[in-house]
Amino acid sequence: MSQKIVIIGGSAAGPKAAAKARRLDQNAEIKILQKEEDLSMASCGYPYYIGGTFDDRNMLVCTPTGVTRDPKFFMNTKAVDARTCTEVTSIDRKNHTVTAKNLKDGKEEIHKYDKLVICTGSSAKKPPVPGIDLKGISTLKSIGDADYLRKIRDENKIKKAVVVGGGLIGVETCEALQLAGISVTVIELLPQVLTFLDPELAKIAENHIRSKGVNVITGNGISSFVGENGKLKAVKLQNGTELSCELAVLAIGVQPNSELAADAGLKTGKSGAIAVDKYMQTTDPDIYAAGDCIEINNTITKSAVYAPLGDLANLEGRVAGENIIKGRVTTFPGTIQTSICKIFDFAAGATGMTETAAEKLGYTDIETVINASPDKPGFMGGLLLVSKLTVEKSTGRILGYQCVGPGDVSKQIATAAMAVQGGLSINDIGNADLPYAPSFSLAVDHFIASAHVMENKLKGRMVGISAKEVNGKVLNGEKPFIIDARGTDEYEEIRLGIGEVLIPLGMLRKRLNELPADKNKEIICYCKISLRGYEAALVLKANGWTNVKVMEGGIMAWPYGREK
Amino acid sequence: MSQKIVIIGGSAAGPKAAAKARRLDQNAEIKILQKEEDLSMASCGYPYYIGGTFDDRNMLVCTPTGVTRDPKFFMNTKAVDARTCTEVTSIDRKNHTVTAKNLKDGKEEIHKYDKLVICTGSSAKKPPVPGIDLKGISTLKSIGDADYLRKIRDENKIKKAVVVGGGLIGVETCEALQLAGISVTVIELLPQVLTFLDPELAKIAENHIRSKGVNVITGNGISSFVGENGKLKAVKLQNGTELSCELAVLAIGVQPNSELAADAGLKTGKSGAIAVDKYMQTTDPDIYAAGDCIEINNTITKSAVYAPLGDLANLEGRVAGENIIKGRVTTFPGTIQTSICKIFDFAAGATGMTETAAEKLGYTDIETVINASPDKPGFMGGLLLVSKLTVEKSTGRILGYQCVGPGDVSKQIATAAMAVQGGLSINDIGNADLPYAPSFSLAVDHFIASAHVMENKLKGRMVGISAKEVNGKVLNGEKPFIIDARGTDEYEEIRLGIGEVLIPLGMLRKRLNELPADKNKEIICYCKISLRGYEAALVLKANGWTNVKVMEGGIMAWPYGREK
Repeated sequence: MSQKIVIIGGSAAGPKAAAKARRLDQNAEIKILQKEEDLSMASCGYPYYIGGTFDDRNMLVCTPTGVTRDPKFFMNTKAVDARTCTEVTSIDRKNHTVTAKNLKDGKEEIHKYDKLVICTGSSAKKPPVPGIDLKGISTLKSIGDADYLRKIRDENKIKKAVVVGGGLIGVETCEALQLAGISVTVIELLPQVLTFLDPELAKIAENHIRSKGVNVITGNGISSFVGENGKLKAVKLQNGTELSCELAVLAIGVQPNSELAADAGLKTGKSGAIAVDKYMQTTDPDIYAAGDCIEINNTITKSAVYAPLGDLANLEGRVAGENIIKGRVTTFPGTIQTSICKIFDFAAGATGMTETAAEKLGYTDIETVINASPDKPGFMGGLLLVSKLTVEKSTGRILGYQCVGPGDVSKQIATAAMAVQGGLSINDIGNADLPYAPSFSLAVDHFIASAHVMENKLKGRMVGISAKEVNGKVLNGEKPFIIDARGTDEYEEIRLGIGEVLIPLGMLRKRLNELPADKNKEIICYCKISLRGYEAALVLKANGWTNVKVMEGGIMAWPYGREK
Repeated sequence: MSQKIVIIGGSAAGPKAAAKARRLDQNAEIKILQKEEDLSMASCGYPYYIGGTFDDRNMLVCTPTGVTRDPKFFMNTKAVDARTCTEVTSIDRKNHTVTAKNLKDGKEEIHKYDKLVICTGSSAKKPPVPGIDLKGISTLKSIGDADYLRKIRDENKIKKAVVVGGGLIGVETCEALQLAGISVTVIELLPQVLTFLDPELAKIAENHIRSKGVNVITGNGISSFVGENGKLKAVKLQNGTELSCELAVLAIGVQPNSELAADAGLKTGKSGAIAVDKYMQTTDPDIYAAGDCIEINNTITKSAVYAPLGDLANLEGRVAGENIIKGRVTTFPGTIQTSICKIFDFAAGATGMTETAAEKLGYTDIETVINASPDKPGFMGGLLLVSKLTVEKSTGRILGYQCVGPGDVSKQIATAAMAVQGGLSINDIGNADLPYAPSFSLAVDHFIASAHVMENKLKGRMVGISAKEVNGKVLNGEKPFIIDARGTDEYEEIRLGIGEVLIPLGMLRKRLNELPADKNKEIICYCKISLRGYEAALVLKANGWTNVKVMEGGIMAWPYGREK
């Protein structure tokens, strides 16, 4: 008799599990029970539909050749019985059945299963503040949300919006609304946006968001939504500020839809998401789970984390789909927490561990370096990359890498993700054989150069200091001797104005008499990207100064105010 | 007393070695002896200067901030005595001196060294055929060549050119000349262009070159250059064809400039290039070498190869620069033979081993797969990628990866290069945590999907057949039963016309009666990219057909003629 497979959820992981199961068993009876009206929605594309990158809504739910992924499509091409508007209300593990409610006629259905896959996804979190139910407050989670916000774009009536939350979805939403002609303020409770980045890089991203005319408020939360006749008219911040707006989009994160599983007695983890092993199996051997409703292994820290991302959902669904048919034969090892986010004509990405994450987890054997350079030569139109590399200090193993800028961030992060996954060290990266042609990279790729700078630090040849630390010193009234090692022309065009002295590298050997008499005085060198700054520091060290530091990434990685 | 360092050559490896040496020793006396008039030329940029991507020649020889890298620059910023127009004519190992000739005044100079670094680079090969010295025949190797060809662009008089050689430089040259408004024919002696690719992918690249109006002739060489009054007027091919042209650019490869080293009794390798160990040390412990004049280790095959590439030259120079100061402390492990080449609005790249290379080396434990997909979703303007993955069959370890197309080839190859370097297997790649957002990739990245298809092949779930094999069968008059599993609309728009039957996947289960009665008949399925082709094959297998194959990459990877 053919096996009965029931899959709860039809967005990303569910259809992937169904397709994989079908490919491995042409006889199984496979059902997808989907609460929503649509199937296989490209939910990561919603911000781009709202922002007007494309106008045809069907592209969110169709195959690459334009066929809508509706129940008919699933039946004809996959021989999968996909039922939409069908909400599973309970799982009876003893009898191997699920109860579902048809949301159109309200009728109950009982579905028998031999193997069940739970792909119930996640829901947008909502802050528990007054006024949360006012008209004009939305999330950006469902295709219904996308329709609502796209309609706002098309109607072109709303002038002011607030995006609550400066994470990945918040930033994507802010771009979408800004492109829809709406004036946007992003409010983030934490001191920085994009917490998958360390503060220095997040600040550069924030500056870029601001440069597009978006207002960004960090370190402040919503205390209430203020309405009039049931409609939103302002948000009130925790510091008392009131911002008038006709629209608020909540983007403070998502939570796993794990109640159904928990009610059935399946184990959930610390994050509240369903616990699965590497086979994607829950604590019931006949029930698997995948996608935004589960927690998975962080392969670096070996601890369970909640990583609700579309790419991982697909990979998890594929593993679940194979194992429900073949038994426990294939595994999903987990995540290294790779993220990327488009920010207008700029991107921000990270893979592995940030310094912040490492500190939180109590890692002490780490070293970091910030690097700035174009992604390819200037004559090929190179664009800036600013990155931060985290390594295990004792071994040089790459633990993490972050990168922001208008340059090719995506390639940088993909390259680094493989390096982290492969357990490569800075020695390996420093001599890596990456694809080089001037159309695509510098002769020494930015990632390789980052490894070189790290090597210089680890070998004690360079003492680095971050822009954040230098800024702290300046604000504290400390008076290190600061050298800008660029040329006079460059200095005239742009400069920090933090008390620095301009000594072009080419003049330095002849102007050593201008340096502090006290050879132990703290000296900080920099230039545009701090290569000349590094060479200047070496000259000073060789001439007896003992406390010489290089401001990592130079002016290009300086995210604070400048004189010019 | 300060150490005397002499570096022969001032293009890529030489200046890098000098800069690294200086950073590690502020007291050493460092000289660069450079035959040419320029220093640190960005020679990989020449085609883009000729093609008009940029017009300011100084960008080829200046720093990112616009300072020309001339002897004054080297002295002031690096304290390096860089002498141009200075050709080293001999090395006296016993006395630790080199003799150089000043090409301006003809005078001889003797330079003493404690450590010597040979970075003499390479020269363009010239075919030994009549007429090779005619006016109008150039290489694209020196900055003088670049000046000559750029002048031709600017004068806009020449109408027809022939590029001899369809390798990386040949293809870049052909693009540059075509963009300069010249009608170009590329002539390649081998049956395919771009031999760092397997034939199937090279053919796709060749088609793209042709689509830009360039004439491509493969499997044919030059028998002579035909002149009139000392000026080129045509090239004669080995098959007798005569092509009129006013310009010919030779791009049949480069050879190492190793005579100086060989004359001094240093060991050279099979390729004719200078033999060095992983410290970049020659057979004389006081002499190092780096760049296009050496051969290096292929870290996959563990054999010496000649890999004259700008990025490797920089990495080798850096290692040599450190070791001449610090002793044998740092190593350059070698190459995995990564290449990339821009071809108009298209790119072609490879890393690791192609199937052709593996076969040549006698590797039998290999499996390959061709995959085609967009680089990101259609609604984000996704562009095509066609790739070929080579793995060690018994272990699934990634041995090589090639990719061509208008999509983001550079990221694909960088990602794969790290996977090869890290010794990752298709299991690792199939579950890789790469950066995903719809602006940058598909939810299941092309590289990950390639690993999935490979997994299906290795697990015996899919029997693949390449377009090349299918085309061979068709040309041989074999009559496999061929199924196009796409939709009717797609078939109307574009189709192969190789005797295929259109059975859309969605109809297949109902139309099994149209399939051959002989269950052992060879059946070949495909679609646009062969995902539906794969699903069709699984349906047929489940229904008893035993000899069902999937044409890998589908129509998108089909490089031959089509009916429509």
